[in-house]
Amino acid sequence: MLTGKQYRDAVAYTLDAFARAGIVLTDEEKKKIEVADFGLGKVEEIGLQILTYVNTERCCAKEMVMRPRQVCPEHRHVSGMENGVPYEGKEETFRVRRGTCYLYVDGERNCGEIELPDTKVTVFHEIVLKEGDQYTMYPNTRHWFRAGEEGAIISEFSTKSRDESDVFEDKRIVRIPEEIKCS
Amino acid sequence: MLTGKQYRDAVAYTLDAFARAGIVLTDEEKKKIEVADFGLGKVEEIGLQILTYVNTERCCAKEMVMRPRQVCPEHRHVSGMENGVPYEGKEETFRVRRGTCYLYVDGERNCGEIELPDTKVTVFHEIVLKEGDQYTMYPNTRHWFRAGEEGAIISEFSTKSRDESDVFEDKRIVRIPEEIKCS
Repeated sequence: MLTGKQYRDAVAYTLDAFARAGIVLTDEEKKKIEVADFGLGKVEEIGLQILTYVNTERCCAKEMVMRPRQVCPEHRHVSGMENGVPYEGKEETFRVRRGTCYLYVDGERNCGEIELPDTKVTVFHEIVLKEGDQYTMYPNTRHWFRAGEEGAIISEFSTKSRDESDVFEDKRIVRIPEEIKCS
Repeated sequence: MLTGKQYRDAVAYTLDAFARAGIVLTDEEKKKIEVADFGLGKVEEIGLQILTYVNTERCCAKEMVMRPRQVCPEHRHVSGMENGVPYEGKEETFRVRRGTCYLYVDGERNCGEIELPDTKVTVFHEIVLKEGDQYTMYPNTRHWFRAGEEGAIISEFSTKSRDESDVFEDKRIVRIPEEIKCS
């Protein structure tokens, strides 16, 4: 459950991060920042701030803003059916614009001891993305990620987003909680 | 035909524009800026500077840099066949990051007299995109565009790019000239 104060604080953080990075938004976009707490109630530690630029049947582009050390929980983008038509899981490329992103994906564990987040994670193949670095994930790849000490801004270029169909490892998670996330 | 000097000048302009906008590139990316003169030999007036971040079977993301008043000639993205498999024409969203983009697409003429570029243009439905504005074009939409007085940086989010299959109105145009555009 996201409180009004948590929501407002997260939006203020996000708008400030965009401004400092020179990422220009329209006034309308500033009002539709999505704050996802995944139903875990501790958005500053586990959460994500998202501005979706475009999401059509074929294409999606977003900016994701993360607070220092904030974690996006482990999930994967699976294939499914929509209106009787099968679709392939989402493919996405993350490109770091500001800060550092520690991305963990399916594959051999290549990191030492790391601080575990308070949500179930099962993959530990670490990819460290600094400013200007990017990484493409294909459908069904398990992944979770954490911002570095200074937070992060990450562009996502992908096929259609269907957040409601993401499969999370932590079964407590509700990707689209009932309360409204964008006011 | 793009001369070595034209190519180097265009790359220098582009890297400076990215730096001023706070758009961070890797050293490897800085070496693969594409300069397209469309075979017309006057790249400062008719041309485009492009950095492709990613271009997979399903998704593409680029940054396009334009000099002041530079024009990208009229074209459309058509459906076709690749390795015996049909594909749908490219869908693309332009998002202006810096400067202004005057975009002309199929539709009723809504602009007054404009300076015509030295390449065939047939559509005059004008959309003025300022910083933070964006516009989505679906397959087969005729379009051309011109930067404002201060040049422009435009992000493009799209389905797979197949530049070689673009259909240009100006039949002199060669989208992928024989000389190497990226050194």
